[in-house]
Amino acid sequence: MRLTKFYIPALKEAPADAEIASHKLMIRAGFIRKLAAGVYSLLPAGVKVIRKIEAVIREEMNRAGALEVYLPSVQPASLWEESGRWEVYGKELLRITDRHNREFCYGPTHEEVITDLVRRDVRSYRDLPLNLYQIQTKFRDEIRPRFGVMRAREFSMKDAYSFDADEEGAKENYEAMRKAYTAIFSRLGLKFRAVEADTGQIGGSASHEFMVLAETGEDRIAHCDKCGYAANVEKVELSDIAVSGDENVQDLQSVDTPNAKTIEEVSEFLDMDSSRFIKTLIYKADGNIIAVLIRGDYEVNETKLLRAIDSGEVALASEEEVESVGTMVGFAGPVGLENVRIIADSSVKSIVNGVTGANRVDTHFFNVNPGKDFTPGLYADIREAVPGDPCPRCDDGKLSLARGIEVGHIFQLGVKYSEAMKANFLNREGKERPMIMGCYGIGVGRTGAASIEQNHDDNGIIWPPSIAPFDVVVLPLSLKDEEVVRVAESIYEELKNGGFDPALDDRNLRPGVKFNESDLVGYPLQVVVGRKGLADGVVEVKIRKTGERMTVAPEGAFHKIKETLEKLSSID
Amino acid sequence: MRLTKFYIPALKEAPADAEIASHKLMIRAGFIRKLAAGVYSLLPAGVKVIRKIEAVIREEMNRAGALEVYLPSVQPASLWEESGRWEVYGKELLRITDRHNREFCYGPTHEEVITDLVRRDVRSYRDLPLNLYQIQTKFRDEIRPRFGVMRAREFSMKDAYSFDADEEGAKENYEAMRKAYTAIFSRLGLKFRAVEADTGQIGGSASHEFMVLAETGEDRIAHCDKCGYAANVEKVELSDIAVSGDENVQDLQSVDTPNAKTIEEVSEFLDMDSSRFIKTLIYKADGNIIAVLIRGDYEVNETKLLRAIDSGEVALASEEEVESVGTMVGFAGPVGLENVRIIADSSVKSIVNGVTGANRVDTHFFNVNPGKDFTPGLYADIREAVPGDPCPRCDDGKLSLARGIEVGHIFQLGVKYSEAMKANFLNREGKERPMIMGCYGIGVGRTGAASIEQNHDDNGIIWPPSIAPFDVVVLPLSLKDEEVVRVAESIYEELKNGGFDPALDDRNLRPGVKFNESDLVGYPLQVVVGRKGLADGVVEVKIRKTGERMTVAPEGAFHKIKETLEKLSSID
Repeated sequence: MRLTKFYIPALKEAPADAEIASHKLMIRAGFIRKLAAGVYSLLPAGVKVIRKIEAVIREEMNRAGALEVYLPSVQPASLWEESGRWEVYGKELLRITDRHNREFCYGPTHEEVITDLVRRDVRSYRDLPLNLYQIQTKFRDEIRPRFGVMRAREFSMKDAYSFDADEEGAKENYEAMRKAYTAIFSRLGLKFRAVEADTGQIGGSASHEFMVLAETGEDRIAHCDKCGYAANVEKVELSDIAVSGDENVQDLQSVDTPNAKTIEEVSEFLDMDSSRFIKTLIYKADGNIIAVLIRGDYEVNETKLLRAIDSGEVALASEEEVESVGTMVGFAGPVGLENVRIIADSSVKSIVNGVTGANRVDTHFFNVNPGKDFTPGLYADIREAVPGDPCPRCDDGKLSLARGIEVGHIFQLGVKYSEAMKANFLNREGKERPMIMGCYGIGVGRTGAASIEQNHDDNGIIWPPSIAPFDVVVLPLSLKDEEVVRVAESIYEELKNGGFDPALDDRNLRPGVKFNESDLVGYPLQVVVGRKGLADGVVEVKIRKTGERMTVAPEGAFHKIKETLEKLSSID
Repeated sequence: MRLTKFYIPALKEAPADAEIASHKLMIRAGFIRKLAAGVYSLLPAGVKVIRKIEAVIREEMNRAGALEVYLPSVQPASLWEESGRWEVYGKELLRITDRHNREFCYGPTHEEVITDLVRRDVRSYRDLPLNLYQIQTKFRDEIRPRFGVMRAREFSMKDAYSFDADEEGAKENYEAMRKAYTAIFSRLGLKFRAVEADTGQIGGSASHEFMVLAETGEDRIAHCDKCGYAANVEKVELSDIAVSGDENVQDLQSVDTPNAKTIEEVSEFLDMDSSRFIKTLIYKADGNIIAVLIRGDYEVNETKLLRAIDSGEVALASEEEVESVGTMVGFAGPVGLENVRIIADSSVKSIVNGVTGANRVDTHFFNVNPGKDFTPGLYADIREAVPGDPCPRCDDGKLSLARGIEVGHIFQLGVKYSEAMKANFLNREGKERPMIMGCYGIGVGRTGAASIEQNHDDNGIIWPPSIAPFDVVVLPLSLKDEEVVRVAESIYEELKNGGFDPALDDRNLRPGVKFNESDLVGYPLQVVVGRKGLADGVVEVKIRKTGERMTVAPEGAFHKIKETLEKLSSID
């Protein structure tokens, strides 16, 4: 492609709302433009990258036996009412009313639609298994869309849904998808990890997320470097660690703690380690006030909490709500707290002679002992992991924490949707059974952005060859020099005819501008054709990733480029 | 693809709402399923057809120098307010309110979004021309969606938008698109005609529609078989034909016409040809009552009327509205009709001593003469063409009428959007000018449906090889016969390895069912492998289109299939 015929407008400055590298660079290098909050247009270079990602996804999905369908984006409310999600999905679901006042939504996901589709035509175990996928546009009305296409409201997703006659088949489908996802993200040149994950609003019994490792990732993962166990911190299993040794249980004692409200203040005031504290947080969960206890040096993970209490929504209670149950912010504690459900993290169980608020101003309790002075309605693992937590899978492994970008997510759904929506089939014995489902998503644009998070420097993007918009850019440094133009054109044509997708920067711009934009756009290779080099009988081939420059005679350029691209591809 | 691993559920009966062949057959053969009124899911075979159509479109668009982009489906109201279409677009525009109460719509077309995109980055004539296209999902909230994907509410469209610095460039882009469209529809094996068309809600100065000729088409076109002129009946230019010879103008005369209201009744009662009548229709146009006159034997074309009076909406007035302007249904006439704008078709001008209603019960006027007894505010060409109308382009050509399905539409937009939205550039002289635009659409799903309208018989679809879901189906008639299975598998593998996309019907079904479904799905070729044939050393190759059957030795099957497919492709 001649850049004079292409449309790849570069910008000097990134927009003010761009916080992370991929967002800044995709805008600056002319891959995307913002239309509205969380809604982006893809420019031609952006489309080329996305098409390459899609092609890899399609190949691996087809190889795994999945069949491509294409489902509507506008979905009738009635199906969401059948699954029960019309009520619970909340404001992220973009609801639409048509001209006849019928209710619809812009699909954020397609479990309902696909289940409806399959239940109409599938009758027998003979029609199963089935794995249907699509690459399609979704809308989730995020309250705070950000990071460009990374957390957009309108976005492209590959979503697949499997239907099986038995658990065994469902697990096979799940494993096939896990393998396909590993192949996809490997081919796309990403460093990633598959981690155990929470199933969230999609539901189901088990799931794995595919996390691209990056500092700017919104997700946090815990992983054991000894046995390979890895999980989202929302899902990681943490064991309790006894902290108080073999101390004797003593009697509850009230103590004045004037002007000390936070754990840090009280801990300093009493000269006691914060691990002795039973931190008491008042939450509102689905409209009910609850008390949540956790060891003073730990934090609550709200997703774990949600799952533990099987709730749809939790948030810290307001000051008024806290007071409505007879306690107060800064001095809340479980002792004597009545008519409030108490949920405690497992870490609380082993505390002996702990400290808590006394539900009175400037007062705490000493020698608080679970089971004696209060009894939680539920103990559960609801805490945030910390580095060094013991691995739940192997003997003496310790967990490390890292940040990741979720690019894929696979779920074992079980019969959640098929039961609710009566997607049944006749089994071998002629009995009606709900189909066993799985669902499998990949964020297409997010995958491209994640690649940039892993592959960029101060000058711009460094695309892996597998998804670069062009394999190489040929840079004639002077359009006035006939020989420069002739050689550049000839290398460009040779590359085109040789099966590559090259760009030719035939724009009338200064060499410095061409170099900067080439680095910014992130072509894996640059071929520099200048008067000076030609006088020495050479052109220069620069590897964007390493900065390495090689000189080669114009006749040898094609071969050198081919060889270098192959090497780069095999590394990635 | 082995059909046991594919998902192509056939149905015996078409749904009750399916009126035309393509709708019935796409459902019955397992290409699409309905999700809601005008909203369809594509099953795997449907996706395969659509991908092939898209590939042809992309190739020809790229060849013509257009660049692929991908624009959001959710568009902010503010842009539509800038263009002025937020108010005028009506209920077909699916309006959406997001969680922050901001207004959006589901894009029915993308002039606003693309104009906004281009105005941000294009500064100079040096950045022009530009032609950007996408293949993307649109939503138009049709009041009566029907005919399956032919007139769906959610549908896939290829839309392109060109931007030029001058009229000449804009015309070049338009011509390039006309050429590209001709190439696309030819390659897709369609019989079509490019016709002059009305510009409708999109606006602009000129346009052509690409019409696939089919009896079930919703559009009507008029074409001259002598000079090749062709136009939508909404756009066709009709000349007036004098009917009354050289009769002398006589004086207006009232006549009683008891019980005669319709043109036919009055014409019979008075024994006068209906071409002598000045038919008077009372319309409501954008809220105002108007009178529309036309020769008694002609009909009004409302799109032409809309354009003539530059109105957004017209409909026949209600009985009450008719009476509110001092006339009545059945006896309306222009003589003495006051305070009402009168628009007359050009055919009225040459009527001498005509007949009209007298705005009184059971009364008509004789000897009515335009210019003398009444004067229309406007004469315009607002009538429906009739077969035999003279061609407006050549000397003695006559127009014929045909039905067509609009699969493509190209528009010269001029500066309609760029002026309203200030999409300006600096020209060679450094002056700011609005860009000159064109826009170009193809209905992707509709093109597939139109192909079926042209290519089917009582047994099912007859796909042209260029867009068939599979090139050929191999039919082993007995799965119990090892030799049948072996030969079928071997031909299937040979086809796969030889660059074809074959299907193998390895389902355990009776031969009759396999034959019927193969005809229904419309594979261009069927390869029948049966015990009886093999005993004679042959398999059978059937051409779906002609029904022709050829026998060939199994070893020769690949070559015969290849040759036959090539022949079929070149015919289409």
